[in-house]
Amino acid sequence: MGKNFVKDITSMDDDFAQWYTDVVTKAELIDYSSVRGSMIIRPYGYSLWENIKSELDDRIKKTGHENVYMPLFIPESLLQKEKDHIKGFAPEVAWITHGGEEELEERLCVRPTSEVLFGEHFKHIIHSYRDLPKLYNQWANVVRWEKTTRPFLRTLEFLWQEGHTCHETEVEAHEETIKMINVYAELCENTLAIPVVKGKKTDKEKFAGAKYTYTIESLMHDGKALQSGTSHHLGDGFANAFGIQFTNREGNLQYVQQTSWGFTTRIIGAMIMVHGDNRGLVIPPKAAPTQVMIVPIAQHKEGVLDFAYDLKEELAGSVRVDIDASDKKPGWKFNEYEMKGIPLRLEVGPKDIEKNQVVLVRRDTGEKIYVKLENLSTELEKLLDDIQTNLFNKAKDHLQENSREVLSYEQFKSDLEVHAGFIKAMWCGERACEDKIKEETGATSRCIPFEQQQLTTTCIYCSKPAKHMVYWAKAY
Amino acid sequence: MGKNFVKDITSMDDDFAQWYTDVVTKAELIDYSSVRGSMIIRPYGYSLWENIKSELDDRIKKTGHENVYMPLFIPESLLQKEKDHIKGFAPEVAWITHGGEEELEERLCVRPTSEVLFGEHFKHIIHSYRDLPKLYNQWANVVRWEKTTRPFLRTLEFLWQEGHTCHETEVEAHEETIKMINVYAELCENTLAIPVVKGKKTDKEKFAGAKYTYTIESLMHDGKALQSGTSHHLGDGFANAFGIQFTNREGNLQYVQQTSWGFTTRIIGAMIMVHGDNRGLVIPPKAAPTQVMIVPIAQHKEGVLDFAYDLKEELAGSVRVDIDASDKKPGWKFNEYEMKGIPLRLEVGPKDIEKNQVVLVRRDTGEKIYVKLENLSTELEKLLDDIQTNLFNKAKDHLQENSREVLSYEQFKSDLEVHAGFIKAMWCGERACEDKIKEETGATSRCIPFEQQQLTTTCIYCSKPAKHMVYWAKAY
Repeated sequence: MGKNFVKDITSMDDDFAQWYTDVVTKAELIDYSSVRGSMIIRPYGYSLWENIKSELDDRIKKTGHENVYMPLFIPESLLQKEKDHIKGFAPEVAWITHGGEEELEERLCVRPTSEVLFGEHFKHIIHSYRDLPKLYNQWANVVRWEKTTRPFLRTLEFLWQEGHTCHETEVEAHEETIKMINVYAELCENTLAIPVVKGKKTDKEKFAGAKYTYTIESLMHDGKALQSGTSHHLGDGFANAFGIQFTNREGNLQYVQQTSWGFTTRIIGAMIMVHGDNRGLVIPPKAAPTQVMIVPIAQHKEGVLDFAYDLKEELAGSVRVDIDASDKKPGWKFNEYEMKGIPLRLEVGPKDIEKNQVVLVRRDTGEKIYVKLENLSTELEKLLDDIQTNLFNKAKDHLQENSREVLSYEQFKSDLEVHAGFIKAMWCGERACEDKIKEETGATSRCIPFEQQQLTTTCIYCSKPAKHMVYWAKAY
Repeated sequence: MGKNFVKDITSMDDDFAQWYTDVVTKAELIDYSSVRGSMIIRPYGYSLWENIKSELDDRIKKTGHENVYMPLFIPESLLQKEKDHIKGFAPEVAWITHGGEEELEERLCVRPTSEVLFGEHFKHIIHSYRDLPKLYNQWANVVRWEKTTRPFLRTLEFLWQEGHTCHETEVEAHEETIKMINVYAELCENTLAIPVVKGKKTDKEKFAGAKYTYTIESLMHDGKALQSGTSHHLGDGFANAFGIQFTNREGNLQYVQQTSWGFTTRIIGAMIMVHGDNRGLVIPPKAAPTQVMIVPIAQHKEGVLDFAYDLKEELAGSVRVDIDASDKKPGWKFNEYEMKGIPLRLEVGPKDIEKNQVVLVRRDTGEKIYVKLENLSTELEKLLDDIQTNLFNKAKDHLQENSREVLSYEQFKSDLEVHAGFIKAMWCGERACEDKIKEETGATSRCIPFEQQQLTTTCIYCSKPAKHMVYWAKAY
């Protein structure tokens, strides 16, 4: 399959990190700039984000949420109001000290997340149970001062949505927290073809200021885990700190119960590392800005370009289709659009026109399919569905094959040395054991999955009675 | 018309600034926060922005531009590369000096605009005439350290799009500059019903770093002007500063010609001040998140709510319709949705149901119209069109009535004392006269309109030969 075309991309088996860097830059998803730790999202990368954003925004609105926009800056005194929150975020915020030529009386940080801004606003606008629930969402950029960064996965600035809601009762807030982690999981699995494990974070790993955190965890091609979306039950911690009270149905003052949940550009990194291969990106059809790329063959011959353009016009109603009619060689184009992960290539040349057919080439399998024109739209629809399903199934198999049950700490350590992937093992619930396991193996607790199994009755580390089965892994 | 309902809003004739503040807060477009000079854009305000954004994004993509995303931060050394640019923006940027606990070696500013970031990127990706034109756009937040602020009109942080393009020739860049100012004008006039004057900024008022700037200027209800969108021909100034060169068709190295253009959340302020009245907002139908608000009358009576909900369902395919079935009194609802500027109110009660009709009330004229159900969708479509046109025509009349031709500086000054509005007057083209006129009258040159008239042959200030007719005004 023309190995010479892909000499520019490092093989993922040789060096996965370099493969990733090669793919994100050569497929023109990002560019670096002189701003340390930040990235430029190029048109192809940004159109992926626009698709994901539009899919998620639909789901957020359909579940009754409204979009708002909060300020970028947070005065230091406001950030300090909730004690766990400031402890978690203070080491990683960027501080503004000067506006124009003047030094500020109070420093402002660039939002790392907006709980405190929403807290202040909710206090203004919530007075009675009639004002509840408040179901808000914001699309925004946030900044966290990370030491080591990697495009999409961890950058100083990233794009995301952050949901913030207020409820009358703890149960209602709990239901919201669950609802939104399910929205994220459904989006990942159905649109991005990324299978996820749903569960709860341990107290050590939960959001700073939350009562508890739900997460979806996915598994990259190299066997490392990636936290792909989180949903937090905030309880009444922020409500207490900000005085967000309402008159309840009994006429008494009561604190609201809150949630927050977020999903970021990091998911593009997940999509790359779950589906990509040694030829470059593989984009699932539902997320692909271009689903079908038409490459005319022998386009200098009479009628070929007209035919190809007509075809594009015709297909545009049912699929996202583009054409490359530049004077570059077909081989260059094949390579380029394979690297960019476009699900289907459509080739059409003089002989095909004669035979009233086109050639389709699947990005996921490389399979070549000759299709009569009269069957083309049905076939395209079927193939795109099939590619979507195939990518999901392949990723699901990979996840399952690389989720290993271990019964002892010895097995935990030896498994981790041989295989990357998730390790399922029992845990007593104590922070001390979790810390030790991380320290000694480098694996962190990814989540206490909703689907529990009883592998053994004791904690693999301390042998005290086990409380939960946990997914552990080395992670991005 | 129920004056008692609107006691909360200051009359615009008594105090226009207070009227504006009342409207933006009471119609729940914004809220204030403890972040000085910033605003919270609430759901109703944000949905207006989403509509405007979606309309403009369509136009930007249809004219061949691609969306990208650049970093939020700019290192000080990068900002300093273009001398006029840094001179213009340095006094109004926010400076980051610390990341987490550490002091930075080099300060970063929060982008006030992104020419320098695009400049650096363009240098990376442009090598040959085959790479041109590059037609990029970004949707982003930017920060300018303003001393006095007002919601939407002037805030520390605002939302906008900024287009950045590179071209082979000066002429091509000029055409792009013109094309985009026309896109803005068309959007303002057709979607937002805001008539604009198109023209060129004087050198004094042009963008810092531009060769020249085109602008659209609109006129608020109080007779003050508002710059509503700008498009800059950057020439090769940034290209020189950043070394953006390409091999041209003759095989020689050449600097690119650039443009940039921006449109911001400020336009929401314009919409409020052009169309609003003493009852609150008036939103043009094409921009309205809700075009028709159904208010059931005597909704406790059997069948009324079912009927109203069915109606909503039925109309949802053709108009943006909502219903308020809360237990608040109809009078409260009438007031609320008038204040929020919803173009049409649809009342339906038991008697209407009996007569197979509904009552429509126009926000712009207050007119009540009885419509048989079988004519309803046709009538709604007609009325929404009619309201859109009426709002534009009223605003156009206001603009024309308040654009006065003056022939002498005496007349200029005396007119300005009596009337607010645009003054059209001849100018020699010298910065000294422009400075003096501003200093002595408070009016600034808004633009040299594309549609020129020869009012006199000499400059109204210095009596030297006149070069241009200029629109002058006091402005926001």
